Amino acid sequence: GASPGLMASSAPSSSAAEMDPNTANLRQPATTGDAWYGVAHGCTRKLGMKICGKFQPTSYQSVGSLNVPKPKAPLSMLLLLSAIKSCRLLMFTYEIAPVFVLMEQLTLKKMREIIGWPNGDGDGLFSPGGAISNMYSVMVARYKYFPEVKTKGMSAAPRLVLFTSEHSHYSIKKAGAVLGFGKENVILLKTDERGRVIPADLEAKVTDAKQKGYVPLFVNATAGTTVYGAFDPINDIADICEKYNLWLHVDGAWGGGLLMSRKHRHKLSGIERANSVTWNPHKMMGVPLQCSAILVREKGILQGCNSMCAGYLFQPDKQYDVNYDTGDKAIQCGRHVDIFKFWLMWKAKGTIGFEQHIDRCLEISEYLYNKIKNREGYEMVFEGQPQHSNVCFWYIPPSLRGMPDGDERREKLHRVAPKIKAMMMECGTTMVGYQPQGDKVNFFRMVVSNHAVTKSDIDFLIDEIERLGHDL
Amino acid sequence: GASPGLMASSAPSSSAAEMDPNTANLRQPATTGDAWYGVAHGCTRKLGMKICGKFQPTSYQSVGSLNVPKPKAPLSMLLLLSAIKSCRLLMFTYEIAPVFVLMEQLTLKKMREIIGWPNGDGDGLFSPGGAISNMYSVMVARYKYFPEVKTKGMSAAPRLVLFTSEHSHYSIKKAGAVLGFGKENVILLKTDERGRVIPADLEAKVTDAKQKGYVPLFVNATAGTTVYGAFDPINDIADICEKYNLWLHVDGAWGGGLLMSRKHRHKLSGIERANSVTWNPHKMMGVPLQCSAILVREKGILQGCNSMCAGYLFQPDKQYDVNYDTGDKAIQCGRHVDIFKFWLMWKAKGTIGFEQHIDRCLEISEYLYNKIKNREGYEMVFEGQPQHSNVCFWYIPPSLRGMPDGDERREKLHRVAPKIKAMMMECGTTMVGYQPQGDKVNFFRMVVSNHAVTKSDIDFLIDEIERLGHDL
Repeated sequence: GASPGLMASSAPSSSAAEMDPNTANLRQPATTGDAWYGVAHGCTRKLGMKICGKFQPTSYQSVGSLNVPKPKAPLSMLLLLSAIKSCRLLMFTYEIAPVFVLMEQLTLKKMREIIGWPNGDGDGLFSPGGAISNMYSVMVARYKYFPEVKTKGMSAAPRLVLFTSEHSHYSIKKAGAVLGFGKENVILLKTDERGRVIPADLEAKVTDAKQKGYVPLFVNATAGTTVYGAFDPINDIADICEKYNLWLHVDGAWGGGLLMSRKHRHKLSGIERANSVTWNPHKMMGVPLQCSAILVREKGILQGCNSMCAGYLFQPDKQYDVNYDTGDKAIQCGRHVDIFKFWLMWKAKGTIGFEQHIDRCLEISEYLYNKIKNREGYEMVFEGQPQHSNVCFWYIPPSLRGMPDGDERREKLHRVAPKIKAMMMECGTTMVGYQPQGDKVNFFRMVVSNHAVTKSDIDFLIDEIERLGHDL
Repeated sequence: GASPGLMASSAPSSSAAEMDPNTANLRQPATTGDAWYGVAHGCTRKLGMKICGKFQPTSYQSVGSLNVPKPKAPLSMLLLLSAIKSCRLLMFTYEIAPVFVLMEQLTLKKMREIIGWPNGDGDGLFSPGGAISNMYSVMVARYKYFPEVKTKGMSAAPRLVLFTSEHSHYSIKKAGAVLGFGKENVILLKTDERGRVIPADLEAKVTDAKQKGYVPLFVNATAGTTVYGAFDPINDIADICEKYNLWLHVDGAWGGGLLMSRKHRHKLSGIERANSVTWNPHKMMGVPLQCSAILVREKGILQGCNSMCAGYLFQPDKQYDVNYDTGDKAIQCGRHVDIFKFWLMWKAKGTIGFEQHIDRCLEISEYLYNKIKNREGYEMVFEGQPQHSNVCFWYIPPSLRGMPDGDERREKLHRVAPKIKAMMMECGTTMVGYQPQGDKVNFFRMVVSNHAVTKSDIDFLIDEIERLGHDL
């Protein structure tokens, strides 16, 4: 695979040119003067918005905290920067944000290609975070099977049930509560010791629900769980969804970024069989929050599900193709423009740059795992190398090391991570998260998503844990 | 009232010191070294985050497109700017964004004080836009009256109905569809000729729904409708809500800003009787999108409605008061930090500055209204001075001026505004929205929310309409 590195150069490395069956959809980084610039430029010209005239020298410096690269196509870039200033980062119709609408459509298509949907066909939106993207997936599934709910409400449908693992993100359960299914109709699936759904448990629970007269509707498979970083076996789950005619959603909010890596994307094998996918570039890919995509395989269904056809916004008698008025697909009205920073970052780093970013983060996590797996005073929460960059471990202070397992040790160990974290915050040196999980007492969860983290940062973290925790 | 002007000076004008019964809650602008800076500074110090050490000279310039004022309390300001850089504009727990959590709480309290709720008590959140804020209001109303829906779904409740006017924003209907009520259970209320709800129609439809065995739950009163800028009579609606025990929501997404103006806030008279309020500082107050608040009078109900108590985020054994972990109130997980730009703008302009901004926008709209109300070739869509800055009018080209009313004239007039707007876009000179409404054919709707708009801009708009439309 590609060698890790810091900010990617725009030229692909030689190893990047090797073909790999995992990555038929991975494209080489764009070169100077590519189609996207052309589209953006052509579009603003065609509209005759004269945004050129609004360009001021200062606007180039004022694009927030992005590292703006030396533009390859200065005129287009300046047009874009001017466009940002002039539209106050708002989008719902094409006329209010033509360039951003096109950027969004092209980028979503590229993401769908990377997922593996034929020709990148389908639909999608950027939404205000993974929880909302997951909520969209449940809404769309409901509309697909019970479209009358939109008009008549949940009472028009039988008792519908959703399935997701006990390690999945709480937003699936929250969507169940918000959308009127009810929390208790979100059925939690058992996982193996590494946090991956057990497919047989899904099938058993689907069968059980049907026997009770409920209607199984939707299954969420997580690609990169929050705590363990586990990847559910998508192909096995997809087989069950096909057998029982269920909507398959893949929550790749955290793990979707691995699709960009030829080395790691096999962990999402089967994702092309999903009906919908959540993928947050603002997580593993380092795009500033918020930047979350909901991607849907069936074209037109987001529109059908959510459109209200408000006459004051979406007039049919405009002088352009109103299919570009994407706002009525959303549950929002005006939307924040989340696409531009992502698009710009993609232009700057290239597809290969994202791959290197991700490979680098996983390499650093592997370094941490290898450093502590056999180190005195550490216990891993699960066996074997983590699938994602999540490394979950207990630090055992010397006072607990000889103690036999039992309630006393568990209670004491439960208090170790909170104490060390509190001391870290008081010292102001570093900070690392902890949580319990199931019957496991509080453990640290170190996650790397910043490719600038170095091995010496990891060494420092371990030194700090031992310095602060030694006398507990 | 205060005299209009451009960017407010920080010193209150002498007229601002006059007391006015409408504005017991309006405060003078803050002066140097006020409590908020203290809180922000103290909080970051207490946490020992050492963010001082991360400050770099460049970060002062990199705060997007806000006009950053010369800081009155430089150290705090630098701490804040550093905080932005270090937390990547993400919030859900106190530890991840302590300053922003406090800013949000203090600002929401101030907004509740301005609404008129005693001591500013209550609850609230910033959400990704008015549509989502309105959705929160319906969710909270449902939880208040039928808390079991959270667990068991909509089938645990009787057939619930929502009421909103035919001129209200489509997000109320959308919320009905999304949350499982069904669009047809969102009942539209008749309005008078100026777009204001007719209270008697509300009472008739509530009675009618009860007679059919449905359960009226929620009434939305709009403060500033999208098209006409109309303000529903909140007090009359509140009387009916009290009589029938209904949740009263005020959608002040567009008109809420008028609460900042002693001259105009009487249009929202009665808003203090609402159970919840949507108020978007990103609309009339000129804050960059996204910045929308949902404010709720009853404390704790947002938490009850939405909490899922995810153990990996919201641990009870943290070393600070976990009531500051506000994330579980939201339907999102990580939230974009929408508060900082608003807070900073408030510090820069002061309460009086916002008042001047709003008074200025309404004065410019009044100038437009007075200019065209008796001008040849113009017809107003409704009689009398608009309540908000929306001015709705038809331009009648000379070829239609002598034509008797009838289908032919209506059809021709319907095509005038789209044609003029298309020509404006081709010329790139200006742009103004149009839409039909009910049985009224396409008309222009000019809205002013930018206080930098001048009378000569308005003159130019009218000149353009006449130049482009003269020969239609």
